[in-house]
Amino acid sequence: MPKEKKLVEAITSMDEDFAQWYTDVVKKAELTDYSSVKGCMIIKPAGYAIWENIQNELDRRFKETGVENVYMPMFIPESLLNIEKDHVEGFAPEAAWVTHGGSNLLQERICVRPTSETLFCDFYKNDIQSYRDLPRVYNQWCSVVRWEKETRPFLRSREFLWQEGHTAHATEEEAEERTIQMLNVYADFCEEVLAIPVVRGKKTEKEKFAGANATYTIEALMHDGKALQSGTSHNFGDGFARAFGIQYTDKDNSLQYVHQTSWGMSTRIIGAIIMVHGDDSGLVLPPKIAPIQVMVIPIQQRKEGILEKASELKERLVAAGIRTKLDDSDKSPGWKFSEQEMRGIPIRIEIGPKDIEAGQCVLVRRDTREKIVVALEQLEVKAQELLESIQADMFACAKAHRDAHIYDAHNFQEFEEIITNRPGFIRGMWCGEQACEDKFKEDFAATSRCMPFTDQEEISSVCVCCGKPAKKLVYWGKAY
Amino acid sequence: MPKEKKLVEAITSMDEDFAQWYTDVVKKAELTDYSSVKGCMIIKPAGYAIWENIQNELDRRFKETGVENVYMPMFIPESLLNIEKDHVEGFAPEAAWVTHGGSNLLQERICVRPTSETLFCDFYKNDIQSYRDLPRVYNQWCSVVRWEKETRPFLRSREFLWQEGHTAHATEEEAEERTIQMLNVYADFCEEVLAIPVVRGKKTEKEKFAGANATYTIEALMHDGKALQSGTSHNFGDGFARAFGIQYTDKDNSLQYVHQTSWGMSTRIIGAIIMVHGDDSGLVLPPKIAPIQVMVIPIQQRKEGILEKASELKERLVAAGIRTKLDDSDKSPGWKFSEQEMRGIPIRIEIGPKDIEAGQCVLVRRDTREKIVVALEQLEVKAQELLESIQADMFACAKAHRDAHIYDAHNFQEFEEIITNRPGFIRGMWCGEQACEDKFKEDFAATSRCMPFTDQEEISSVCVCCGKPAKKLVYWGKAY
Repeated sequence: MPKEKKLVEAITSMDEDFAQWYTDVVKKAELTDYSSVKGCMIIKPAGYAIWENIQNELDRRFKETGVENVYMPMFIPESLLNIEKDHVEGFAPEAAWVTHGGSNLLQERICVRPTSETLFCDFYKNDIQSYRDLPRVYNQWCSVVRWEKETRPFLRSREFLWQEGHTAHATEEEAEERTIQMLNVYADFCEEVLAIPVVRGKKTEKEKFAGANATYTIEALMHDGKALQSGTSHNFGDGFARAFGIQYTDKDNSLQYVHQTSWGMSTRIIGAIIMVHGDDSGLVLPPKIAPIQVMVIPIQQRKEGILEKASELKERLVAAGIRTKLDDSDKSPGWKFSEQEMRGIPIRIEIGPKDIEAGQCVLVRRDTREKIVVALEQLEVKAQELLESIQADMFACAKAHRDAHIYDAHNFQEFEEIITNRPGFIRGMWCGEQACEDKFKEDFAATSRCMPFTDQEEISSVCVCCGKPAKKLVYWGKAY
Repeated sequence: MPKEKKLVEAITSMDEDFAQWYTDVVKKAELTDYSSVKGCMIIKPAGYAIWENIQNELDRRFKETGVENVYMPMFIPESLLNIEKDHVEGFAPEAAWVTHGGSNLLQERICVRPTSETLFCDFYKNDIQSYRDLPRVYNQWCSVVRWEKETRPFLRSREFLWQEGHTAHATEEEAEERTIQMLNVYADFCEEVLAIPVVRGKKTEKEKFAGANATYTIEALMHDGKALQSGTSHNFGDGFARAFGIQYTDKDNSLQYVHQTSWGMSTRIIGAIIMVHGDDSGLVLPPKIAPIQVMVIPIQQRKEGILEKASELKERLVAAGIRTKLDDSDKSPGWKFSEQEMRGIPIRIEIGPKDIEAGQCVLVRRDTREKIVVALEQLEVKAQELLESIQADMFACAKAHRDAHIYDAHNFQEFEEIITNRPGFIRGMWCGEQACEDKFKEDFAATSRCMPFTDQEEISSVCVCCGKPAKKLVYWGKAY
């Protein structure tokens, strides 16, 4: 069967070249395509359907916490971007600048939003007057633009889709609470829906968001042992409020500055799904996020009654609320299997003449390839159970892999040995000085990923880099 | 009660100044706000929630017809925009041009998409190879930018949200069929969900989309007698395909050009909802699109048991699938009534001590202000029935208004009399010459809205403008 071979051969193996494997999967699973617009990606139906599922589930979780959606303009006048000093330094260098409307030179150039803190601040400045107007818990779904030099589908793109939440609160405590709450929404979503275990923690000063008092992050470990920052939540304190003059009258009739947060998750997370769960046959999607959960593939479909039975099974599963498709194309079963595997569909059902005779069908798990013979009358129940098992097992498997790639380093030599030979997270104590972060970055291209919330045992009393007294446990690693 | 007065007085009456009434409603119902970005609007939670409902319902209807969602880059390189001549002439004059990425001058300037035909063509050129790849029925939800001089919330804005469908087909017939199919999806959606009656028809050559063979439109009549183009569907034939070289190999192994369509509906439609249904107390939302369908307002809420009962009613309605909120703020009932009316919430429920004693509550319709006493045990059923009645009555009312403002004109004098004195649609025969359209535009600022699909009786044998032999019946009018 040369055709089947061809589809699988189209993917480089992960062990041979992980970066090429990633690119191959994105292409062959038809998630994205390149465009004539340098550095921007086209998200194709199979990729966008994953994003729609992410949006639906995240949006539902946001709204449960009281989030309201809004839409801000996509443009930021330069003078507005310039108001908060750290923020403009962080974003202006990679902004895309609009200078002309039609044939007219604009009086002031405007950039396409790289993020919308300044727009929300400009809005809140007038929108918020009294303590009765607080909190404001707004979010928007949109695309943002950052003029990156090196780009890769989902992971780094000049334009990407995301959501950005922007909130304003009466007190410091409330803002901090919301910051952590949203980080936990992201973390729970990743673990429960995407089956991706994450480390929750705080960024160091060096790694925090431009303009934030504190940035919290969830960090996931990819199959190649590199980290991927998967969602961030920022506490701005009253820094932006002071820069923009966002004040409210409190119950005592005195003027106070609001305290703000922002938090975002982007299409980057699709890169994490690919790199945490994928294998040498392509994509492996967790059932809860898979646009198609079950693909029914008829065997010897030209024989009488086969297609009808396959179609009946599909309809039964659809009626049971399982996202199911039937592949009744004129390709060979083997080719269809390869395609279903490439696309990461969690279960395929094989149904042929012998199965029908025996009153059964065969369910094949995408994640383990295990085959399970199921009596036809039990199909819905067994399929549902299997989807749940796959979801749970994929998380357990990803967690086992992640945990097996967390190493402790007590000094520079250990750190060097691990970072050179064993890709993964390195737990190491840190003195708190940026010089040590800079050294690890320069020597090994390794960064501090986060200071974890839990897991704060003191594995050494001295900094893994400089040997001076240590302050914090840090997860280090190479990152996307 | 000076406070209640203030809220209502905040709106100019429709008859006095319709444009100001519109602006007031948009502001006081908290749908949008102005931004520091000239000509761009901020869509606030109450406005965005309407758009989310529109998206959900339209998207569901699209997918039933086989539409798949994708995402294209927001930028178009100038050379790509220039490929189709009519198209670039139509859109380049109001494009926003990006010239710099960070501090670097771009080698080629790029515009922010005003519409994405060129991007889809550029993609389809490589994506479509064989007849097996057809049809492609793609859609995207995004924002687009057109550098307009005069702007108004929802109606005309430099950036607005929309969906744009872009399809490619093997044959001319199939493309035409899809063009009409999507126009009907829009029309049915407007009539069934938004309670807005529309005229379905074809645009004249002068009014069609830049680059299209044919443009179809749905035209709605606003309360002031002006028309609003509410959705359009374009058949491109193979014009773009020839310009971009989009060819496929057919079953006979010969190379053919694809036939394409595009179709769009935007946040402009929210302007139509406001101007078709609104009144001097504010917004009136059709139940099917209203983010909140029922507002429960307790009377004498400080008395024991009132708030509990009001909350119980709310919970019962929510459990019955009705989008319900409870206004338990410390404002007066009268103030709450004004707010609920301003926000266009279809039903309010008044519940006070006497009602509880009598085992009843009072349902008040937003559209007619009719009060209906309902026994508490029948609440869910009666509320559901009332929502359905309101939906149906709002459509009937809007249709009666529309139909009462359609006038026939048989010659120039009649046309002049009507367009000067009686705002509405004017049905008049047309010779087919653009000169007559130009004359009406110049003399009366009136345009040909469409040549209707049905309703093609010949009301005269001569052109309403020039008196020469007539070819088509046209709906004329002033438009937004």
